[in-house]
Amino acid sequence: MGNIFNFSAGPAVLPKDVLIRAQAEMLDWHGSGMSVMEMSHRGKEFVSILEKTEADLRTLLDIPSQYKVLFLQGGAVAENAMIPMNLLNGQRADYAVTGSWSQRSVKEASAIGDIDVVAKADPFIQVPAYSEWKLNQDAAYVHICTNETVNGVEFDSLPDTGDVPIVADMSSHLLSRPVDVSKYGVIYGGAQKNMGPAGLCIVIVREDLLNQASPLTPSVFHWKTQAENKSMVNTPPTYSIYIAGLVFEWLLAHGGVAAIEQVNIAKAKLLYDYIDSTDFYTNNIANNNRSRMNVPFFLKDETLSAAFVQGADSRGLLQLKGHRSVGGMRASIYNAMPIEGVEALIDYMKEFEKLN
Amino acid sequence: MGNIFNFSAGPAVLPKDVLIRAQAEMLDWHGSGMSVMEMSHRGKEFVSILEKTEADLRTLLDIPSQYKVLFLQGGAVAENAMIPMNLLNGQRADYAVTGSWSQRSVKEASAIGDIDVVAKADPFIQVPAYSEWKLNQDAAYVHICTNETVNGVEFDSLPDTGDVPIVADMSSHLLSRPVDVSKYGVIYGGAQKNMGPAGLCIVIVREDLLNQASPLTPSVFHWKTQAENKSMVNTPPTYSIYIAGLVFEWLLAHGGVAAIEQVNIAKAKLLYDYIDSTDFYTNNIANNNRSRMNVPFFLKDETLSAAFVQGADSRGLLQLKGHRSVGGMRASIYNAMPIEGVEALIDYMKEFEKLN
Repeated sequence: MGNIFNFSAGPAVLPKDVLIRAQAEMLDWHGSGMSVMEMSHRGKEFVSILEKTEADLRTLLDIPSQYKVLFLQGGAVAENAMIPMNLLNGQRADYAVTGSWSQRSVKEASAIGDIDVVAKADPFIQVPAYSEWKLNQDAAYVHICTNETVNGVEFDSLPDTGDVPIVADMSSHLLSRPVDVSKYGVIYGGAQKNMGPAGLCIVIVREDLLNQASPLTPSVFHWKTQAENKSMVNTPPTYSIYIAGLVFEWLLAHGGVAAIEQVNIAKAKLLYDYIDSTDFYTNNIANNNRSRMNVPFFLKDETLSAAFVQGADSRGLLQLKGHRSVGGMRASIYNAMPIEGVEALIDYMKEFEKLN
Repeated sequence: MGNIFNFSAGPAVLPKDVLIRAQAEMLDWHGSGMSVMEMSHRGKEFVSILEKTEADLRTLLDIPSQYKVLFLQGGAVAENAMIPMNLLNGQRADYAVTGSWSQRSVKEASAIGDIDVVAKADPFIQVPAYSEWKLNQDAAYVHICTNETVNGVEFDSLPDTGDVPIVADMSSHLLSRPVDVSKYGVIYGGAQKNMGPAGLCIVIVREDLLNQASPLTPSVFHWKTQAENKSMVNTPPTYSIYIAGLVFEWLLAHGGVAAIEQVNIAKAKLLYDYIDSTDFYTNNIANNNRSRMNVPFFLKDETLSAAFVQGADSRGLLQLKGHRSVGGMRASIYNAMPIEGVEALIDYMKEFEKLN
């Protein structure tokens, strides 16, 4: 197939420049004679890659020095279990449910410790008003998912949790917009949306939170142990870290997070404005919580959905089918999706509307 | 650097043909228009990759149908903790310590449940005689590490454990020799030695062992849940699985495990025979437990070690420094190390001996 636009929710489109560079370096990284995949994680070559990757991420997100950056495995779902292991410390924690992923977080955490659901959207079309959240002042932390990949619900502000640290799953919008890291206790996310390949999970944790892990926490997921060992308690996912590093370099070269945010705002506006301009397509998410990254939409006549996907596929507009739990369509328009992809999608949507 | 031979213990050398193919397919896998890194794990393209990868591994190891193959994350060290979570079920388990990695397994498992060390080599130069193992007939399992990467100690047979299932860490020699899978309850290993990139861990588990997991086991590491979901409880490490699949194809094209075993025997014999032929170098592992994959050796005059490594590096014989816990040298000669690499190493060792 020739030119395509890949709207997958993740693993997802990567910057073409990153793939071209990875291709060029596949057999010989910087004259080392080795592929990055073949390097000892403790050798000077890979250590330099890891250090630069962390430094670039710190620059991109302006991460304060009292936060540790960990490069882990297992995805956000593994972290869902490890968060209570690392933080609960015999206490309870508060969880807000605003979509499928925060609901999953509740399920995974409940197996480990005692948690309270303090806010729940029903249906998953907006973040409940903060005045309605039943926050517990003595909670170990408050867990939120700041962008719900399946449902397309994004936080536009933060609740006031006082001294209780916020733990945020940012898997699907980290690096898509500036974030004030200092407002969080923990930020985590799988890489396979805006950062790199599946198999890498990034955890940014305030260092005063590193002393409350359960002794049952496996060393590989014990944040303090990983912080002390620079994410090398065992072999980290080296190639995924390398690709993430290339993505970070690409983003820096394109003006960083503030610049990409403007592009993301423009792309999302284009698509939502078009959807709102016709009743052939609908998106029912509250305006202030519409995700810039994941845009679910429905055809008014759902019997046309299969034909819509088929026609899109044949034009190289790929992976538009909505999540099986929601149905309809979903266009994920991450950092690496060029605005031309959104324009091509809208052109197709217009044409499909005209024909049906 | 030009032609090099990479003796890293892992991540380690990969077959050059695999890297060339990955390079060619980096931007467009089989006309899909996508890199494998960009594919939804639930899309037909990646599902076909995963299915072929599993099928090829089953062929290579002749895995009986009552065994499940899982593609997980976290490396063998994460599994060290997950094994008791999945298997202990309120019982105790037996562990044999034959080197650094099985010692590490004891440490990780002890944090989770009750285990007994039933055999321990001291120093780590041979597998203790099975007659001395203090096996418990009511143990949930017996854990062994069949090839100790750091110490170069490889099992040449198995203890008779009766009905107690053997759980074997085979990280550094899986696929290097035929294995009778039916003799094991669980076989597991990180991919970054003989199988692919770091970040993928393979678990082969007999299905009757899938019903004894602790409810605290995180879903991502819950073998039964992963088996029921074809390793897709969450996003698996897709690109690492793809590369492992290419390695499996390469191995099948080269005659499979039985054929590569003959090459491995020849490579190891060449190196050990040379070491034994001079007292300038020594390897003190019992003959029947000398690893075919990891060959640690010492210079008689250890003050020459740094010069040895430096000279090797300058000839493109890379990553020969021994593990920091052992010292000396270590040549890891996995499947992808051609016999020419071993010959080049011996040539250098001879020359270094002559000069010093």
